[in-house]
Amino acid sequence: MKLAILFGGASYEHEISIVSAITVKEKLNNFDLEFIFCDQDHRFYRIDDKDMVAKIFASGRHKKMPQLVLEIGAFVHKKMFGSERLDMPVLNLIHGADGEDGTIASLLDFYSIDYIGPRPAASVFSYDKMHTKWFANAIGVKTVAYESMNVNDPRVISTQLPFIIKPARLGSSIGVSVIEEESQIEYALDVAFEFDENIIIEPFIEGVKEYNLAGYSANGGIHFSIVEEPQKNEFLDFDKKYLDFSRSSAVSEAQIDSELVLELEKTFAKVYANMFEGALIRCDFFVVDGEVLLNEINPIPGSMANYLFADFKHVINVLLANLPQKRRPQVNYQYIHSINQAKGK
Amino acid sequence: MKLAILFGGASYEHEISIVSAITVKEKLNNFDLEFIFCDQDHRFYRIDDKDMVAKIFASGRHKKMPQLVLEIGAFVHKKMFGSERLDMPVLNLIHGADGEDGTIASLLDFYSIDYIGPRPAASVFSYDKMHTKWFANAIGVKTVAYESMNVNDPRVISTQLPFIIKPARLGSSIGVSVIEEESQIEYALDVAFEFDENIIIEPFIEGVKEYNLAGYSANGGIHFSIVEEPQKNEFLDFDKKYLDFSRSSAVSEAQIDSELVLELEKTFAKVYANMFEGALIRCDFFVVDGEVLLNEINPIPGSMANYLFADFKHVINVLLANLPQKRRPQVNYQYIHSINQAKGK
Repeated sequence: MKLAILFGGASYEHEISIVSAITVKEKLNNFDLEFIFCDQDHRFYRIDDKDMVAKIFASGRHKKMPQLVLEIGAFVHKKMFGSERLDMPVLNLIHGADGEDGTIASLLDFYSIDYIGPRPAASVFSYDKMHTKWFANAIGVKTVAYESMNVNDPRVISTQLPFIIKPARLGSSIGVSVIEEESQIEYALDVAFEFDENIIIEPFIEGVKEYNLAGYSANGGIHFSIVEEPQKNEFLDFDKKYLDFSRSSAVSEAQIDSELVLELEKTFAKVYANMFEGALIRCDFFVVDGEVLLNEINPIPGSMANYLFADFKHVINVLLANLPQKRRPQVNYQYIHSINQAKGK
Repeated sequence: MKLAILFGGASYEHEISIVSAITVKEKLNNFDLEFIFCDQDHRFYRIDDKDMVAKIFASGRHKKMPQLVLEIGAFVHKKMFGSERLDMPVLNLIHGADGEDGTIASLLDFYSIDYIGPRPAASVFSYDKMHTKWFANAIGVKTVAYESMNVNDPRVISTQLPFIIKPARLGSSIGVSVIEEESQIEYALDVAFEFDENIIIEPFIEGVKEYNLAGYSANGGIHFSIVEEPQKNEFLDFDKKYLDFSRSSAVSEAQIDSELVLELEKTFAKVYANMFEGALIRCDFFVVDGEVLLNEINPIPGSMANYLFADFKHVINVLLANLPQKRRPQVNYQYIHSINQAKGK
């Protein structure tokens, strides 16, 4: 199966996207893979199999690789004589900005390139944590209570201590702080506003149970992964998350009763339906007093959450066979023709 | 002032975008304008001033014009010897799909080209009428009650007659029907589903007052147009709307008291703030029993609602001087470096 893995991006998660791509390469070792690196200046490079190691990018050696341009239907490698089209679907593996905010999705839509990944609207509803709250509320899925603050707002917080401060639009715990006493607030706000002009504040819930579930839709239904109870100490910091993106060995299933599994799957399905088609997403849930709350939607999870699926190659094959097709209206100029006729032109 | 007007697009509103562009050309006659036509196959053409007439496009003669490609920072006209960069901001004047759904915004963001128009998230919240409802609800702005239906849902409607059926994602009244009796429902649903897989149904409110207000933010505040009470018979059909997009002469202000004007402006500001910066939008409001309801957000109004502003050239100049700048994170590979150090590589 031919597939181009697109990774990198002008994002705080640029580096973990590289780690993700290297991991997915190993997991899809019988695929006919191409690797497309998007650098922080938004140039696309075609990377050879053998160069898919982190230090190539850290050292800037990718700049010596051939550049690719976008044309209708494919990324294209222009050569001295003629050009080579990478005629194949793309796996959007750019985490954070560019990849998860809908930019890359729009580019691929515009150039009519099939891809695995969230479509533009799904990206907007999952990338910004405030928009995720709006979305969840609209579809009847519960979330943790929150308040939002813009960098220009007065720094008044009504949530009771302890609470969590998060930049609205970053994943991987970047810029996130747990606040236990008043004296920590100012600095934590400065840190969060360093990354985003909007932040959200949520109560820190002691002893909350956390469960992750991934899935995708194909052949008219949603296919779920196993449920994982992630290890955590308070919350994962960036270094630990970073290593997390290179996970490739199967994890063990959370020890929970089948009723809760069903409840998590039901909530996942509500989130996914008519919004995330074409993507393999991971939803991170909290369970508080027996109630399932949506914490976060990862529309491009680290290393595609391969470790949650028994047969990851099969998952990607099935997804590729079920990508949504965008309908494109036919333009026929009937109004201009009729007006020109009326004018006698 | 240099400005490139981008119009056309693969959209049901392709033709009215052409009409809009011709109208805006006349209104900005002292600007140094370029015209970029996006055809239905997503190819960009550079159109000469003298060729900015509707029949050029209807007859396909644009295909003989020079093509443009997107490069970092500009649309580029590749010539036999060297190439010419159109180094200037863009006015996104593509109505409907491509222009208003966030696709073009993402393209321009990705290629670092400044533009007037809604950013990607703002596009998602205004393009789909259901998302507009979610957004309005989240920011505390009232709308008309509604229900939504997917093409795969059972055709059960709980809204009382008379009601309106609309495709979720089209403007310009395309596919919209007013239903007065049961026998009209099936056909109207077929028509609406012709254009979108999601539709919304709203009660048809007899004798509703409708008011349009446009505005944009600059220099730390929102600048409003006059309020217009649009003429209507039931609702504008596509032919009338089509002519509507070529409006260029000033309209008279709605005869309403200053209290209502303030209320409309206050509601507009709630919709606009922290979402539509960079765009000139027109909000269409209903007033029912003295209450202001948001009906629709037009993030790229027909002919840029020039007819609502006393000095349209000034408006565009001010907007151009106040375009939002996207912040782009700096990638420094510190994690890859530290991991490689730890590995001794």
